[in-house]
Amino acid sequence: MFIEIGDFLNLRLKQMGILHLFGVPGDFNLSYLEQVEADSQLEFIGNCNELNAAYAADGYARINGFAALTTTYGVGDLSAINGIAGAYAENVPVVHISGIPPLHVVQKGTLVHHTLVDGNYDNIMNCMKEFTVAQTRLTPANAAFEIDRVLRQCFIDRRPVHIQLPSDITHVKIEVTDRPLDLSYPAVEPELLHSAVAKLCEVIGAAQHPALLIDNEASVFGVTSLLNDLSQKCSIPFASMLTAKNIMDEGSPRYVGTYVGGASQPHVRNTIEQSDCLIGIGVRFSDVGTGVFTHQIATEHYIEIKPYALTIFGQDYPGIEIGQLLVELNKKVAPRKLSKPMLEKQLLTAIDVPEQQKLSQDILWNAVADFLKEDDVIIGEVGTSNSALAGLKLPATAKYIAQPLWGSIGYTLPALLGSLLAAPERRQILFIGDGSFQLTVQELSTIIRHDLKPIIFLLNNGGYTIERLIMGENAAYNDIQNWHYTQIPGVFNGKHQYKSCVVETAGQLKQTLDSIEQFDGLTFIELKLPAMDAPLSLKKFASVIARFDYGDRGYEILKQRAQTTPCQKVISF
Amino acid sequence: MFIEIGDFLNLRLKQMGILHLFGVPGDFNLSYLEQVEADSQLEFIGNCNELNAAYAADGYARINGFAALTTTYGVGDLSAINGIAGAYAENVPVVHISGIPPLHVVQKGTLVHHTLVDGNYDNIMNCMKEFTVAQTRLTPANAAFEIDRVLRQCFIDRRPVHIQLPSDITHVKIEVTDRPLDLSYPAVEPELLHSAVAKLCEVIGAAQHPALLIDNEASVFGVTSLLNDLSQKCSIPFASMLTAKNIMDEGSPRYVGTYVGGASQPHVRNTIEQSDCLIGIGVRFSDVGTGVFTHQIATEHYIEIKPYALTIFGQDYPGIEIGQLLVELNKKVAPRKLSKPMLEKQLLTAIDVPEQQKLSQDILWNAVADFLKEDDVIIGEVGTSNSALAGLKLPATAKYIAQPLWGSIGYTLPALLGSLLAAPERRQILFIGDGSFQLTVQELSTIIRHDLKPIIFLLNNGGYTIERLIMGENAAYNDIQNWHYTQIPGVFNGKHQYKSCVVETAGQLKQTLDSIEQFDGLTFIELKLPAMDAPLSLKKFASVIARFDYGDRGYEILKQRAQTTPCQKVISF
Repeated sequence: MFIEIGDFLNLRLKQMGILHLFGVPGDFNLSYLEQVEADSQLEFIGNCNELNAAYAADGYARINGFAALTTTYGVGDLSAINGIAGAYAENVPVVHISGIPPLHVVQKGTLVHHTLVDGNYDNIMNCMKEFTVAQTRLTPANAAFEIDRVLRQCFIDRRPVHIQLPSDITHVKIEVTDRPLDLSYPAVEPELLHSAVAKLCEVIGAAQHPALLIDNEASVFGVTSLLNDLSQKCSIPFASMLTAKNIMDEGSPRYVGTYVGGASQPHVRNTIEQSDCLIGIGVRFSDVGTGVFTHQIATEHYIEIKPYALTIFGQDYPGIEIGQLLVELNKKVAPRKLSKPMLEKQLLTAIDVPEQQKLSQDILWNAVADFLKEDDVIIGEVGTSNSALAGLKLPATAKYIAQPLWGSIGYTLPALLGSLLAAPERRQILFIGDGSFQLTVQELSTIIRHDLKPIIFLLNNGGYTIERLIMGENAAYNDIQNWHYTQIPGVFNGKHQYKSCVVETAGQLKQTLDSIEQFDGLTFIELKLPAMDAPLSLKKFASVIARFDYGDRGYEILKQRAQTTPCQKVISF
Repeated sequence: MFIEIGDFLNLRLKQMGILHLFGVPGDFNLSYLEQVEADSQLEFIGNCNELNAAYAADGYARINGFAALTTTYGVGDLSAINGIAGAYAENVPVVHISGIPPLHVVQKGTLVHHTLVDGNYDNIMNCMKEFTVAQTRLTPANAAFEIDRVLRQCFIDRRPVHIQLPSDITHVKIEVTDRPLDLSYPAVEPELLHSAVAKLCEVIGAAQHPALLIDNEASVFGVTSLLNDLSQKCSIPFASMLTAKNIMDEGSPRYVGTYVGGASQPHVRNTIEQSDCLIGIGVRFSDVGTGVFTHQIATEHYIEIKPYALTIFGQDYPGIEIGQLLVELNKKVAPRKLSKPMLEKQLLTAIDVPEQQKLSQDILWNAVADFLKEDDVIIGEVGTSNSALAGLKLPATAKYIAQPLWGSIGYTLPALLGSLLAAPERRQILFIGDGSFQLTVQELSTIIRHDLKPIIFLLNNGGYTIERLIMGENAAYNDIQNWHYTQIPGVFNGKHQYKSCVVETAGQLKQTLDSIEQFDGLTFIELKLPAMDAPLSLKKFASVIARFDYGDRGYEILKQRAQTTPCQKVISF
């Protein structure tokens, strides 16, 4: 059949389950946007800027599986690229569609706007190559197969791809087959699979203390329930990396906690580091995931399972796909019982505080732990929010969204827009600091424009608290302007009621949380918190990271200098 | 002498006249920021996000000569890159200082946050190479000469450079000479200069209708007064490119107008295209500068003078620097008188409208033409504002700032922050549309935080009018959320008084403009304008660009489809 290139691309997006397209219009993507607008199943969500569009697509994909955004060439692409790189770092499959100048312009190097006016049409593609797993520049001759190639790579790697769609060819009709996009994994050769599974059964059977260490790819590649089955069948305890918060049920009797190297609770550290058969699922040992490289994992006891790779005690098995491996393993592995009872976990205990007491991080997160419910989508901005939420036990089916590795501040507010559109029926709760909020504030307008109803907690602690903990406690560079935050939802002029308030005491917090249930609308709560208050885990991490970042000598020089520099500004409310 | 690397860098920045450093803190640049904070002559201006920081630096450099910004690795760099690319496209010298992870981390490929967690530390540099004229990763061994090399390249090319400063070496002391940074141009060999000047004198002397066509580089490289002298001595009429608005005195008797190819006024087109000796200064013939390539310039009558290159009627003279060339030329060239009187220019005539009349673009720009004063800094966002301002005669010493080539919407509000800090004593006036304003709104907070007092005209026409003119007049994708704009300065919570109001009629506009003089503070005026109203030049350009972007066939298909699609949303106030 013949189909217009833009329509074919949209058909493929819908086959991936994408029903919303984020982005910002510009002259080079308007012809494509006309095709989106004409498509009754695909809705364009106009963002306030392109970086926000990329963040929103990321948040959408984390719930929906895949997402797409469109920008205009040059200006739009480069505004979005930080969000695309973040999606790459965090394994989020986002399709980036750039409306580029007409094909003849690109081919002849004609000097048009949104370029460096030097005839170079490779620079944007060169940048995108660094942060996407496949790229293409469509032409009428290649579109039928290039669209499928690039989208299939997005499916296989679950990472961003980049498609350049020249503005003058969107409406050219190409001949395509009526087969849908191939969304299957490459089949593993049965003999190979058999030998790998046999080896795994052998080493798991022989182990005294097997354990599972689970990272985010387990969720991205949809194998968490297979892992749960394995854990159950063989009584294998499991820990999650900090970057895999709540992707497995934290209420499971076999869940030991979060592993963060030397910063782990002792029983978690023991379970993982003393295991004689540790099975890591997509684990990446980064600074933030290991308490700054204080992990001790012995290669000779380590089985590494990646989406398409398996290494057993140092021996590689190339060509293994994780899903097929786990299915076979669960069939073949011999059941076993727990050799000893699990160690008792340390749980947060509720604290009782007078109503008049000023709000603190401790009071806040104790109350939040009670407030969270099953099926909530919980989003934690990097900094105090993510640090605190990482330490809470979340309800089993709650989805947690954060960007701990890439760590781009401001990410969560637009990501919330995306996750809300992907699952408008779920209660969605954002925790974001004032510093981060200022980076991407305008996207609250898009949330309001679409009548979405999240609960937003803005932690106002007068600047960049995570930076203050690392360096410059009183430095002016960590200060920000203190806005009238609760007026902002009103400025963005929604059609429906919203509720906003300021919370300064424990009593006000309790009252506010109690009243949220009764209100059907956007809720925006400004929490006033002390500038240097933070979860203990973050305070510890901050000083470790400071010594790591600046070196021991740099750290000592800086600290000494900071003490002799007078305080530039006192934060107060 | 021995000096800490960060302090040496700051010393060099100050020698370039940079007294403000824009940026956002992050753990990898905090050690450097400590050194900035300790420097009494260099002020850190914390921006709300990194793209805004890059735009602010761009605006600062356009008045101050040079500018600098600092970001943290990965997240900050990629957020800023669109602003840096824009500075490259528009010839604005900005020094980008990225605080990167510790040197040992980079050298060993350690897996830390703000990276793809794959050990790759080249991807950011690879991207920056596309949009900067020099790059370096500092080490204690190379810092003394690499800082100078990169900054000198910034001076020579007047385009952005990228410096990676590892977080753990900022405090390492290096030995440097006490010579200041070399801010001189390479001397041209006297014989070569003599022969080039002799040839120029000959062809100018022989010409019947010499003319000057001036683009932005004339301003960037500081030769506008030399060009004025040449024009005066030889009675050579001059036109400006659209990208060089008001860099030469538009009140000069020899100024003919703006040259935009076939879209020029007839007398301008004649002067330029009929010249038998047309001298182009740094001219770039882009789509926006030529009415979409409708210019007709004969190579055999064209002299091209670039900052470091000269071509006379197709013959190249490599090794010529523009400043030395023009100084010598002005000495040697024979004076001549105008062969015939200049053609009369078409000027805007004031229109008289009833006070109750609804505001329109015509009424607005007629009033603005009267309102502008000498020495104003006038900033026009791409779209209706820039199009209209390009058509106005500006006061002689007014500085005009826009980003017509790169054309990144949202640029001007942060650029205004930069230009205000560079020249706080001048009256500064921004014209920006509602669509553009939403991209970078938060930087108004930084303007307010520093008690700056611009006059901001927000043209509220209910979405992306320039896009509507090109495609999708009634399309939902060109709509935006209609904010309560005049409440925004209040939300940002300044210490000083501000004034904000809504203007809907000709009478209100007159009254508001009359009252501005009496108020010493930030003035924010929302102008309500019809969605499809625009300066005539933009309306014409939009339909030409639509045919160019989508091809004749695409354009016809789209227009036809748009007419059969019902209007999704009617914009009204």
